[in-house]
Amino acid sequence: MYAHAPLQAPDEPETRRARPRQTGPAPERSSVARAEPYGYAANMVDMLVDLLAGIVGPASVSVGEEIGPDYTHDESLTASPVEPLAVVHPASTAEVAAVVRVAGEHRTPVTARGSGTGLSGACVPRPGGILVVFDKMSRILEVDTANHVAVVQPGVTLDALDEEIAPHGLVYPVYPGEQSASIGGNIATNAGGMRAVRYGVTRHHVLGLEAVLASGEVIRTGGCYVKSASGYDLTQLIIGSEGTLALVTEAILKLQPRLAHSATLLAPFPSLEAVTRAVPQVVASGLAPSILEYVDALTMEATTAAAGIDIGVPAEVRSSTQAYLLVVVESRDASRLEEDAATLGTLLEELGALDVYLLSRQAGEQLVEARERAFFVAKAHGANDIVDVVVPRASMSAYLASVSEIASDLGALVAGCGHAGDGNVHLSVFQPDPERRRDVVHAILAAGISLGGAVSAEHGIGTEKLDSFVATSGSVELELMRRVKAAFDPAGILNPGTLLA
Amino acid sequence: MYAHAPLQAPDEPETRRARPRQTGPAPERSSVARAEPYGYAANMVDMLVDLLAGIVGPASVSVGEEIGPDYTHDESLTASPVEPLAVVHPASTAEVAAVVRVAGEHRTPVTARGSGTGLSGACVPRPGGILVVFDKMSRILEVDTANHVAVVQPGVTLDALDEEIAPHGLVYPVYPGEQSASIGGNIATNAGGMRAVRYGVTRHHVLGLEAVLASGEVIRTGGCYVKSASGYDLTQLIIGSEGTLALVTEAILKLQPRLAHSATLLAPFPSLEAVTRAVPQVVASGLAPSILEYVDALTMEATTAAAGIDIGVPAEVRSSTQAYLLVVVESRDASRLEEDAATLGTLLEELGALDVYLLSRQAGEQLVEARERAFFVAKAHGANDIVDVVVPRASMSAYLASVSEIASDLGALVAGCGHAGDGNVHLSVFQPDPERRRDVVHAILAAGISLGGAVSAEHGIGTEKLDSFVATSGSVELELMRRVKAAFDPAGILNPGTLLA
Repeated sequence: MYAHAPLQAPDEPETRRARPRQTGPAPERSSVARAEPYGYAANMVDMLVDLLAGIVGPASVSVGEEIGPDYTHDESLTASPVEPLAVVHPASTAEVAAVVRVAGEHRTPVTARGSGTGLSGACVPRPGGILVVFDKMSRILEVDTANHVAVVQPGVTLDALDEEIAPHGLVYPVYPGEQSASIGGNIATNAGGMRAVRYGVTRHHVLGLEAVLASGEVIRTGGCYVKSASGYDLTQLIIGSEGTLALVTEAILKLQPRLAHSATLLAPFPSLEAVTRAVPQVVASGLAPSILEYVDALTMEATTAAAGIDIGVPAEVRSSTQAYLLVVVESRDASRLEEDAATLGTLLEELGALDVYLLSRQAGEQLVEARERAFFVAKAHGANDIVDVVVPRASMSAYLASVSEIASDLGALVAGCGHAGDGNVHLSVFQPDPERRRDVVHAILAAGISLGGAVSAEHGIGTEKLDSFVATSGSVELELMRRVKAAFDPAGILNPGTLLA
Repeated sequence: MYAHAPLQAPDEPETRRARPRQTGPAPERSSVARAEPYGYAANMVDMLVDLLAGIVGPASVSVGEEIGPDYTHDESLTASPVEPLAVVHPASTAEVAAVVRVAGEHRTPVTARGSGTGLSGACVPRPGGILVVFDKMSRILEVDTANHVAVVQPGVTLDALDEEIAPHGLVYPVYPGEQSASIGGNIATNAGGMRAVRYGVTRHHVLGLEAVLASGEVIRTGGCYVKSASGYDLTQLIIGSEGTLALVTEAILKLQPRLAHSATLLAPFPSLEAVTRAVPQVVASGLAPSILEYVDALTMEATTAAAGIDIGVPAEVRSSTQAYLLVVVESRDASRLEEDAATLGTLLEELGALDVYLLSRQAGEQLVEARERAFFVAKAHGANDIVDVVVPRASMSAYLASVSEIASDLGALVAGCGHAGDGNVHLSVFQPDPERRRDVVHAILAAGISLGGAVSAEHGIGTEKLDSFVATSGSVELELMRRVKAAFDPAGILNPGTLLA
């Protein structure tokens, strides 16, 4: 293992939070950055707030002390909380457009916020800016069972969507690990998650958008179809743009038939390398696993302990295990599923697994859920930062070896798990000193880039990975992105300081 | 059927052409538009040509009478041939960059050309412009079997790629129906094809690009990974941009495991409406067909006659048939395939098929191939234009009814087939009078838009659908696209007049 310091004891047990933004620890108000918008006089501020209240109604604007602490932060471990000038809760696209128009007239930054479950600071407001919260735009407008699409407002949570479409035998297969996340937030960061290995990420499931531009104009992109060669794909450009190009006010989502049967296999391996070597073979098998995760031994211990579950692997196997592969296969047919699980089990053994465990449905679900909570477990154990680098999946082993060396050289504990089928590594970095931590994280990100990877697979750049993103990107590419940004938002009012400097 | 005039007799039988661009009928030279670049004096032209020769070598530049007629046109039925100032054949990214830099300095239009199999005029050169042909950049640089990616130059054809990767048990599942098409051309138009219903279109299989900007600068986007949330997705923006944003010089393609077994079913239906009603049910079945095509009776007769095959449907069934559904299912397992084919057959019967035929492997392949040739058959029969509108798949029936009305009202014969699983309709329009034809085509496109569709699913806007695209798009969206274009190409040298006016 690449552990180099004892785990810190958790200060307090982290419990499952259905809507983290509502129960996240409130920052001390004194530590929250506040500022008037760009040196406006107080009467200008009052005027701006009056204008906003005129649009969304006085009850849907809060300022100063009325602003709940939840709105000052997201779930990132490093972003400092910021209190905006005003928080608004528009109830319609027209209201969003009017708010953005007012912001544009006053050169006031606008930050969009869904459920606030982001991990890179992208929905932390700007000092003196307007935070647009989409909790009043959380309706599922249509579930179209003939075309297999849902039309939703951005505030709809993954949980709410699933509840609505499951009875139709349909699924929206993006599971970023936090079901209270909103579709708008998922679109902003191109959220991925465990099932991406089979189903792809958010951008593969969003067919069209309605969005408000920085000018306050409203655009519609795409439609209820998968194919188009009709102009630039503005849908794809807005997805993953972290609120810097437009505010999404409606999305057309592609749904899929829900497969009725699933089986979960757990395979302990003697080394991380053996796990990462096995992954391409599992993908090549054609068994099309819907989940293909690696979990290192340390993370497995911590997440299962936190969830209070026993994975049933005997102590003697566990003691030789450096990492686990967690694989889920799905089928519309129960007997095929059984066959596939058996084929997969044999394959995993051939690929060097110490043993292979077929979990009961309940145990499988618990383990996947425990894995989903890995971030919160790491946080409870005192993790100081997290990274979600992606590398070519065959390079994961080399990458983790580099990470181990970096951790050793620079003095940090690094542990993790990841979407092995996608080469997407989630690492928790334990190093309390902010400067040393920054160096470690930057080195870890740069190592991923040098293997042909990217800074973030699914959390986004936000404010927190911005320096590393800029430092590791080509200047021509960055300049081009800045010109694209200017084409959308010439005055730079949309989430400035996020994604691009 | 929605036929309103007798089919014209074919002037000459169309034979299978492996590389249409080499054998397409040469336009009369006198009918080819020629122009000096923007009023340059002859010595300036000579200087430009010398500069180009200095970059790619004199043997890789042709001008005037040396320019083969193939380079003046693509396969669209309506685009007028244009002779460029010069045709260049760069052999490297550096040469492409240098050519574009020279073009920029002289404000000379640059048009990229792959195999010239496009159907919307997008690779027809500009008068006085430079045509960049990628036939010398047609190497497969890498087949990475661990990451399931191929790195290719833009001139690689689908056929060449398939030949290279098939022995590895891998497939690049985009089949736009013309295997001599190049990857670069496929990327330019976001090519789709029959298998998109299961596998998606080009944009779902391109993970990264190297591309030359209008400035001559070279960018790299994406990488050997499926997930990224690291800045704007320039890969997706360039895909489908028809050579107007950048010239692609390298592409990273995602490959998939090749499924060993496939079965083809043919189901005649008494009405087009019954076919389109059946489609959502087939998709919802979870059988995940890799091909789900409708072919109207007229098109089936013509394509099978042209291919010299007998579909084996008895005359009495045929006489009651208005349209066929052609369905292919694939599996890695022969016995599962048999089961799936049986399940599908039963389903199709329940959905109103007059009968269901399971074709032999050979017959199935022949029929799919015949379907792929539908365009050339229509062309041989004198089709005057084609459209490839996409509508929400459940609206196909309503759409085809509208089309029938338009054809009747405006006096044209319209017949076709399409990717029913995607709502993508391919129609041939027979109306020799150019103005009447334009009206019919525009009405057909507008009817698609009014049902929530798009002008083109996979052929692109090019020059030939530009008026209809502009007329049916929102002005805010068009203006935004123009600003994006300007962010990439401020002087407008890349394929001007294509995709955007």
